[in-house]
Amino acid sequence: MKAAIFRGAGKIAVEERPEPTIQEPTDAIVRIVRACVCGSDLWYYRGITPHPEGSIGHEFIGVVEEVGAEVRTIKPGDFVIAPFAISDGTCPHCRAGFHTSCLRGGFFGQGVEGVAGQAERTRVPQADGTLVTVPGTHFSDEVLASLLTLSDVMGTGYHAAVSAGVKPGDTVAVIGDGAVGLCGVLSAHLLGASRIIILSRHPRRQELAREFGATDIVRERGEAAVEAILKLTDGVGADAALECVGTNEANQTAFACVRPGAIVGRVGVPHEVEIPAETTFYRNVGLRGGPAPVRAYLPTLLEAVLSGKINPGRVFDFTTDLDHVAEAYAAMHERRAIKSLLIVDRL
Amino acid sequence: MKAAIFRGAGKIAVEERPEPTIQEPTDAIVRIVRACVCGSDLWYYRGITPHPEGSIGHEFIGVVEEVGAEVRTIKPGDFVIAPFAISDGTCPHCRAGFHTSCLRGGFFGQGVEGVAGQAERTRVPQADGTLVTVPGTHFSDEVLASLLTLSDVMGTGYHAAVSAGVKPGDTVAVIGDGAVGLCGVLSAHLLGASRIIILSRHPRRQELAREFGATDIVRERGEAAVEAILKLTDGVGADAALECVGTNEANQTAFACVRPGAIVGRVGVPHEVEIPAETTFYRNVGLRGGPAPVRAYLPTLLEAVLSGKINPGRVFDFTTDLDHVAEAYAAMHERRAIKSLLIVDRL
Repeated sequence: MKAAIFRGAGKIAVEERPEPTIQEPTDAIVRIVRACVCGSDLWYYRGITPHPEGSIGHEFIGVVEEVGAEVRTIKPGDFVIAPFAISDGTCPHCRAGFHTSCLRGGFFGQGVEGVAGQAERTRVPQADGTLVTVPGTHFSDEVLASLLTLSDVMGTGYHAAVSAGVKPGDTVAVIGDGAVGLCGVLSAHLLGASRIIILSRHPRRQELAREFGATDIVRERGEAAVEAILKLTDGVGADAALECVGTNEANQTAFACVRPGAIVGRVGVPHEVEIPAETTFYRNVGLRGGPAPVRAYLPTLLEAVLSGKINPGRVFDFTTDLDHVAEAYAAMHERRAIKSLLIVDRL
Repeated sequence: MKAAIFRGAGKIAVEERPEPTIQEPTDAIVRIVRACVCGSDLWYYRGITPHPEGSIGHEFIGVVEEVGAEVRTIKPGDFVIAPFAISDGTCPHCRAGFHTSCLRGGFFGQGVEGVAGQAERTRVPQADGTLVTVPGTHFSDEVLASLLTLSDVMGTGYHAAVSAGVKPGDTVAVIGDGAVGLCGVLSAHLLGASRIIILSRHPRRQELAREFGATDIVRERGEAAVEAILKLTDGVGADAALECVGTNEANQTAFACVRPGAIVGRVGVPHEVEIPAETTFYRNVGLRGGPAPVRAYLPTLLEAVLSGKINPGRVFDFTTDLDHVAEAYAAMHERRAIKSLLIVDRL
């Protein structure tokens, strides 16, 4: 089969690899229909964080071809969504709703041969716990794109909003206008926020943010952004902030722009972030979040997509096929694309 | 009137001061019945943090003697509890439940002459927002002691538990066996925790912790304490941790002893604390808390005391009068007492 292979910074190859096979009785083999490139893939693409050479990609939807002897709830022919984290669904951390810490878990695209999403097929460990079957057999390209976002980016934006405790009527500040930040806007809207302020300087992203429910755009950054948000909220601060970047500046902005007692929901992987222990304490500002337990949110978000309530697939603005996956990375790296979709096969 | 006066590290005097008088139409004058010494008073007593010389003390209950022209809900003769933070109850932060950030607020015992709890009388600014009237006129010394804890220490322990999201059936780790930690145990119990692990090496505190609902005592500290808590929870970690000390070690213990997705509720004033941005992120460990909005919890906790459900006054193990307030500080400083009560006057 064909698979995207990481060959070092800036080098994404398409190579012929052995077909994945069942190795554990809890495995499934999935034929991939759609896949995509994650903002976090750019960290190794750009050579900023180390990554093993080999199979890559952790966001995909597809059709089950084969299951191991112990798989009970998933069967060949099922159209499935795979969260980026493998989870058994039964360990104490999964039962507590934090599948990204599954005791028998792992992640797609982390160097295990044949367990990766940017390929024609993948092995899925812990298939019963990991995969979610989508009811139905016919979907438009638009709906397929939205279903694909449920494997990571939409669930991650939703985790930011849930972690920040967004509730109906809230004023929410979203730091970051990448695909995750935009999904954060959509999630805050879904949870009933009445005012959503996004930090963005990028006209196309601003437009999509408004489509997703943003009511205010702040072009400033850092302290000027904090001042702008305070001005928009009569000096009170936002009821919640979604930190969707991971830089120190984005985190400081999030801590400073919220009202006392608010929570910062963070999903941006922290890079040299300092959390101010005292100023957050005296203002009772909280902090929650981390890698999104996408699996926990899938039932809710799947229903929201299938009922047409949300259309997160709109974050894709670059589409190609597996043969041109290097182009998909380059388009995001060069900021020509918000997020790149790969059409791998027909449903 | 007589009042305790801070005269520099280790020096608590009792001096004759002018009677406090109404200065704003929103003021009340309260005759103090019971007062006490807070663990946080020891920071300046020990010369660790700076503090203005003058009136001190921020925990008291008493009887209203006089009110300003604009006071509506409080009247002379009312028996009242005063939270340590002054709040108007109407600003956006008060309405959001974070009275310690009141826009027209302040704190007792912070150097404003005649606005302090370790005295025969005090002026209470923002009386309508700040004071809570206790129904009834006759109370045992035991109940008076419990009502007194609602001005700070019990509300602070409760804030730790609420901030940590303690819910029925939880396993809760309490870091700190001071009066706040002990009230944290009682609060976790009140919120339905089924297992409460406290870190303590002190036999009398262990005994009181058990009386308050602790099920397990861990004598270890630091990494050994984390290992002990993991062992007690089958390697999973606690569902919530209450950080009731404020040192860096106590904070690191709290972060490390909880399961993925848990929240650390912190009420210990942080002293050189480093919050590990990455390890908390990857484990989805959250952090909430700060100065307790005691006023927000008063209706709930007052009902719990008056109905006999909780008896937090048990934290007092040293009793004296205002003339001997220096002894009350010394007993806590020398760890002879968990918490010192001052009998100032009859109800």
